Amino acid sequence: MEYKTQMEAAKKGIITPQMEVVAKKEKIAAEVLREYVAKGTVAIPANPAHTSLSPEGIGSPLRTKINVNLGVSRDVTSYDMEMEKVMTAVNLGAEAIMDLSSHGDTEPFRKKLTSECPAMIGTVPVYDSVIHHKRDLGQLTAEDFLEVIELHAKNGVDFVTLHSGITRETMGGIKAGNRKMNIVSRGGSLIFAWMSMTGKENPFYEYFDKILDICYEHDVTISLGDACRPGSLADATDAAQISELVRLGELTKRAWAKNVQVMVEGPGHVPLNQIAANMEIQKTLCHNAPFYVLGPLVTDIAPGYDHITAALGGAVAAAAGAAFLCYVTPAEHLALPNVDDVREGIIASKIAAHAADIAKGLPGARDMDDKMADARKNLDWEEQYKCALDPETARKIREDRKPEDDHAETCSMCGKFCAVRSMNKALKGEVIDIL
Amino acid sequence: MEYKTQMEAAKKGIITPQMEVVAKKEKIAAEVLREYVAKGTVAIPANPAHTSLSPEGIGSPLRTKINVNLGVSRDVTSYDMEMEKVMTAVNLGAEAIMDLSSHGDTEPFRKKLTSECPAMIGTVPVYDSVIHHKRDLGQLTAEDFLEVIELHAKNGVDFVTLHSGITRETMGGIKAGNRKMNIVSRGGSLIFAWMSMTGKENPFYEYFDKILDICYEHDVTISLGDACRPGSLADATDAAQISELVRLGELTKRAWAKNVQVMVEGPGHVPLNQIAANMEIQKTLCHNAPFYVLGPLVTDIAPGYDHITAALGGAVAAAAGAAFLCYVTPAEHLALPNVDDVREGIIASKIAAHAADIAKGLPGARDMDDKMADARKNLDWEEQYKCALDPETARKIREDRKPEDDHAETCSMCGKFCAVRSMNKALKGEVIDIL
Repeated sequence: MEYKTQMEAAKKGIITPQMEVVAKKEKIAAEVLREYVAKGTVAIPANPAHTSLSPEGIGSPLRTKINVNLGVSRDVTSYDMEMEKVMTAVNLGAEAIMDLSSHGDTEPFRKKLTSECPAMIGTVPVYDSVIHHKRDLGQLTAEDFLEVIELHAKNGVDFVTLHSGITRETMGGIKAGNRKMNIVSRGGSLIFAWMSMTGKENPFYEYFDKILDICYEHDVTISLGDACRPGSLADATDAAQISELVRLGELTKRAWAKNVQVMVEGPGHVPLNQIAANMEIQKTLCHNAPFYVLGPLVTDIAPGYDHITAALGGAVAAAAGAAFLCYVTPAEHLALPNVDDVREGIIASKIAAHAADIAKGLPGARDMDDKMADARKNLDWEEQYKCALDPETARKIREDRKPEDDHAETCSMCGKFCAVRSMNKALKGEVIDIL
Repeated sequence: MEYKTQMEAAKKGIITPQMEVVAKKEKIAAEVLREYVAKGTVAIPANPAHTSLSPEGIGSPLRTKINVNLGVSRDVTSYDMEMEKVMTAVNLGAEAIMDLSSHGDTEPFRKKLTSECPAMIGTVPVYDSVIHHKRDLGQLTAEDFLEVIELHAKNGVDFVTLHSGITRETMGGIKAGNRKMNIVSRGGSLIFAWMSMTGKENPFYEYFDKILDICYEHDVTISLGDACRPGSLADATDAAQISELVRLGELTKRAWAKNVQVMVEGPGHVPLNQIAANMEIQKTLCHNAPFYVLGPLVTDIAPGYDHITAALGGAVAAAAGAAFLCYVTPAEHLALPNVDDVREGIIASKIAAHAADIAKGLPGARDMDDKMADARKNLDWEEQYKCALDPETARKIREDRKPEDDHAETCSMCGKFCAVRSMNKALKGEVIDIL
């Protein structure tokens, strides 16, 4: 093999089989894609040990991708239910699954994912470190953490979130009480807690070069986690967040120098008017690395509906340059999502991603919308369901409340007042009966 | 009385009782508000015959308001269920209700609304014309339509949607087949159909001066309907839409000259990247009259989830200048919404309006978000519910899937991995136990 990673191949001018697949999916020339991968503008997270993978590219010149977080926790322990969520997610079009399991024996599920699931698989090794070593956080060593990264890499994981941007220096600002919500990143808080208990530097920062060696060996893409992502509107775009982003930009360059692919994670809770600015700053500080956002959530006061607050921020972010959206479910801030929540979260994310792709003017992005419009003009309901993101739900709503027989072609919203019916008749010169 | 309408009073330098109430609600000086009303930048739809009204101002310098469409149709005929929706809407914070009833005896319900409901009441008289006169569309005369406007005005309706911007000239472009979806405005299609059957000019345009006399007499605000609002992304910002907007700008000036308050209705289905431009164009063409948008929906392919596609466009529109959002429910394009749909639609609209108000930097707009952040940091769940847009739903999600007793202060999403718990312990110098 002349290369270990997609980026190395790209830099050597090699078009890999994965690039061929991705270029076809994106309807662009493989050579154009290769250049993006060489520059780091696009990442193709594709661990060779993930045997069931259908590769995808992540980068702002491509279609916006979405990620679905799953995994058992101490309070919800069924791996079967998680596998049901995985299949729901894949069927609804999620391109990536992050397995955030934090309970029980995590390795078999991870291996099942990388041998059966066609979507990219991501993990957050710091979560699994406590579980894997069966020792509490304060008892773990830097080596313990690195061991888990390597284990995940060998298990076929395509990308890992590492919170390498938070350091002992960061701790001062947080301790000074400059933020309303301190740190809300789960991984970031664990590292802060570990540094706080051990007095040592963040191992994901201190041993970054060793980590790069592991990731290079297995072509694991690093998703540089944003430990200091704002957890409330009040903390958005503050010194803690932006200082960390500066460091993530430095780490991006170090990874690329070793041919390791990178994504950079982003906020968080951000007011609508700050989102585009956040994307622009990321582009300059992180050298156009693909930006992976959680939300952004545009208000803090909608628990139960945060799939909507996140879709709203996500669409604006993706239109302004974010490449990858982490879904958020209605259970965010409240409970582990159930299968229905997962479904709602995915659809909301798909809407945001699709709206952004249309806004970006990607070729063919609006094709299905145009088909839908034709089906609507023709009052062809079966065709409308075919064009719908969720045909089942659309059908159910209409069929539950159907219009009467003498205007069965309409729906019960307008009945004979249906604008499409009136226009179709008027344009044929027919009499329009409403009563 | 020295004035008939809020605008007339404002121009005369009079601060009305309604202006006092609105200024207090908006936390601005009454004199500042009076100037907005005099210029037409803010409308206060407040028909003196609406005895139960708690007045609101509509305009981009103020909080974004939302409207809820209700009303029986031939297929769903229960006025009791509609009244239940009204109360749901008012309790969830809707500032306006449009009664679009198109079946049975519509007047008693309308009168009930204007004697019991504190929210602004709007109607679309052209819908009711067929019902009121019990004659089909083609049999109605211009006088018949005007009679219904006057009836609604006397019933205490605060604003009426009139599609005065579509004319016989417009028909040519539509007939030429330039659009994918022709006309999707229900009222617009009825007028097109009427013009088509009778060969006459649009009476809401031809007799606009007579209509202004009625609206002046009862201080009914005219919501200038956009008959040519795009019904698909493909039709967005096209010649039909913008030509009509030019005419609506002319009609706005004619109304203001007679001291009649005006809002201008807007799209529709619009790609995300065109929304801000649409708002800017409206401001120049319509002289900063308040803009009332339906959506905009940022994709056509999400039936069953159009409350989300509309919230997405609505937030961006309101942040860019739209003053008034018409809610959209999950049943849009499919069926008449039920009570649950109404609820979902309202919450989604409230999220959009609130996100926009924060983006606009309105004083105090973020207060509740800041309170929520404090409650989250304190893991104070009761306080979190109090800050939530929908406390009931938030509580239900958490309580259905509670964490175990030894970490009951967290939620089942993260359990002992809870970032807030870890940080609170770390900042106190405590040991953080995860296992």
